[in-house]
Amino acid sequence: MTKPIKFTLNAQDGAARQGTLQTRRGPIETPVFMPVGTAGTVKGVRFEELEGSDLDAQLILGNTYHLWLRPGIEVIKSCGGLHKFIGWERAMLTDSGGFQVWSLGALRKLTEEGAEFRSHIDGSLQFLSPEVSMEIQAVLGSDLVMAFDECAPGEASHGETSASAELTARWARRSRARFQQLQIEGADLGRRDECADLSGQQALFGIVQGSSHLDLRRESLARIVEIGFDGYAIGGLSVGEEKPVMWSVIDEVAPLMPVDCPRYLMGVGTPEDLVEAAARGIDMFDCVLPTRNGRNGQAFTSRGKVNVKNARWASDSRPLDENCRCQVCRRHSRAYLRHLYVSGEMLASILLTHHNLAFFLDTMRGVRQSIRSGDFTNFRRKFTESLNASEQ
Amino acid sequence: MTKPIKFTLNAQDGAARQGTLQTRRGPIETPVFMPVGTAGTVKGVRFEELEGSDLDAQLILGNTYHLWLRPGIEVIKSCGGLHKFIGWERAMLTDSGGFQVWSLGALRKLTEEGAEFRSHIDGSLQFLSPEVSMEIQAVLGSDLVMAFDECAPGEASHGETSASAELTARWARRSRARFQQLQIEGADLGRRDECADLSGQQALFGIVQGSSHLDLRRESLARIVEIGFDGYAIGGLSVGEEKPVMWSVIDEVAPLMPVDCPRYLMGVGTPEDLVEAAARGIDMFDCVLPTRNGRNGQAFTSRGKVNVKNARWASDSRPLDENCRCQVCRRHSRAYLRHLYVSGEMLASILLTHHNLAFFLDTMRGVRQSIRSGDFTNFRRKFTESLNASEQ
Repeated sequence: MTKPIKFTLNAQDGAARQGTLQTRRGPIETPVFMPVGTAGTVKGVRFEELEGSDLDAQLILGNTYHLWLRPGIEVIKSCGGLHKFIGWERAMLTDSGGFQVWSLGALRKLTEEGAEFRSHIDGSLQFLSPEVSMEIQAVLGSDLVMAFDECAPGEASHGETSASAELTARWARRSRARFQQLQIEGADLGRRDECADLSGQQALFGIVQGSSHLDLRRESLARIVEIGFDGYAIGGLSVGEEKPVMWSVIDEVAPLMPVDCPRYLMGVGTPEDLVEAAARGIDMFDCVLPTRNGRNGQAFTSRGKVNVKNARWASDSRPLDENCRCQVCRRHSRAYLRHLYVSGEMLASILLTHHNLAFFLDTMRGVRQSIRSGDFTNFRRKFTESLNASEQ
Repeated sequence: MTKPIKFTLNAQDGAARQGTLQTRRGPIETPVFMPVGTAGTVKGVRFEELEGSDLDAQLILGNTYHLWLRPGIEVIKSCGGLHKFIGWERAMLTDSGGFQVWSLGALRKLTEEGAEFRSHIDGSLQFLSPEVSMEIQAVLGSDLVMAFDECAPGEASHGETSASAELTARWARRSRARFQQLQIEGADLGRRDECADLSGQQALFGIVQGSSHLDLRRESLARIVEIGFDGYAIGGLSVGEEKPVMWSVIDEVAPLMPVDCPRYLMGVGTPEDLVEAAARGIDMFDCVLPTRNGRNGQAFTSRGKVNVKNARWASDSRPLDENCRCQVCRRHSRAYLRHLYVSGEMLASILLTHHNLAFFLDTMRGVRQSIRSGDFTNFRRKFTESLNASEQ
């Protein structure tokens, strides 16, 4: 039977992998960074820019929770699915809503069946479960679907985390079952014809939980792999834990993950995190940092972060990053960007977001190239040295 | 002696004129609409888009008042003038600050010397005069400079208006004198080499005032023309007066304006206003409507205004304007734009502004083409009929 996605390794350099993820919307070179498009838009970025040569994003992320609450599934269904609704032809991954519901904290109530919570938009009572999440993601018609999981807090005890990971495993099984039914029923609005050895169906990713408890992480992975998914994600990281904790989990889990499936580290991270996680064999990333921090006046550059608000840039005619070839760095000075930001001009957010995404996506291009040329160790060292340079 | 700009009539159709305005930054086909870039940015639009084929804006407007207060003239001077500061190579017009100071109302104090007022940013006491305005505009290095004028309120009496227009005439003379000195001193940061029969210097426009009093309008025009400018503007309209009042002033003034100079109607207007004013021989326009209303969720289309907030578009997969070929109308539905606006997403403002500017600039292209082909009367009639169509 043909699969919905196909992952091929092209090169390895140590644990770092460079592969091609064949999806029903075309091939994606990994390691890959996904810009986050929560409510059907990567905030402040036109789709023409995402497709343009500066960014050339192959895959973006949408949020089940947000899209379900607004504009609602009926609207998206009547518009023919998320791709048609937003006007994006390339691949899309949707998360399951599990993380957003978890973020609501005291506002949600968990049962075996699912999560009951109040909408952050209108306070209405809502219920999300593995089945509901799969049904929503089928209507969205995303190409990569995430199982509905529960995320234990970073500081959770062994007992609490174990119970949470067990629940995640049971929800993973229910996600898988409902997902399969929906594919058979033809509920997937992004469905494509079979081609290039792909089934044309959605692909489903399982999520490994277990917080900082390495034994529970191993157990969670085993349970999820036993159920069987098209790809595997590490969840529950970058949620406030110390960096060494994150690396210890990745060091433990990544080597045990199936070699022939894409490995997705959810919600991570800084440019340095991406390179370090790629060094540990991770293939996929998403993070709001380039977009959110861009809106808040922070630029990521090859020489570290630049706060555009800083008065020292008031008359500085240099670009944000002299090593960057993006449109923003080719055209605009720090002085101008600072002026826009201080004046509350929308263009500040637009330009900083563009540059930040260009920097993240370009970093991933560098990672891929250096793995292919067997020069990743050198790339990683130089990249880190430059990031930590004292002079901006 | 070579002049800074050269205006050539290519075609006339009734009173409507199609011309070429040669500037030191290249030729501009008229009638032309200028997107407003108050603080050195056309709000929500990247310069790549302004230069792209959808918009292809030949000329944008900057505001002396805003740029003077923030980032301040020293910053712009040290960055080499406004073009270099913002990263725009095409032509730019700056207004004199007179209108903004007038808008401050009770916050400003007028004397023969100039206008004293408090900054809207930090409350500091500031002083603007014909001389100061010319000095600022020389540092900005804009290609088209506006004389410093005083704008009488729409409801001003004959006596008040007369006194105001007299003051504007005296300020026009002082503007001209200081402007000439600054050109000789080389204060113009946008200065270019002489080429194509142009002096490479800035051009200065005089402004006709006189509110709704037609005799005072004629007198004001005579005084301004006597002083002598490179172009002539009609100011003090679109400030709250009834539409028939505006047309009566334009009908009175336009036919008396020098034939061989560009005629600029300041702050006007709706798409219909642009076509109607072009029919009366106006060559240049600026207005915040496409940008400001775009941010507020209003789209201008060939079939009238569309309020994207409207619930009736919730699942409407049609573009904003089925006759529009802009990127927004080619890619996005009303349903998606409504979702973005209702969700408070920045992309709503970005896309609506883009479409609105495309519609305004495309309307001007239609005006120019139809004048050249002698078909303007027909264009004007069809355009107006479509705008007033009952069905959106």
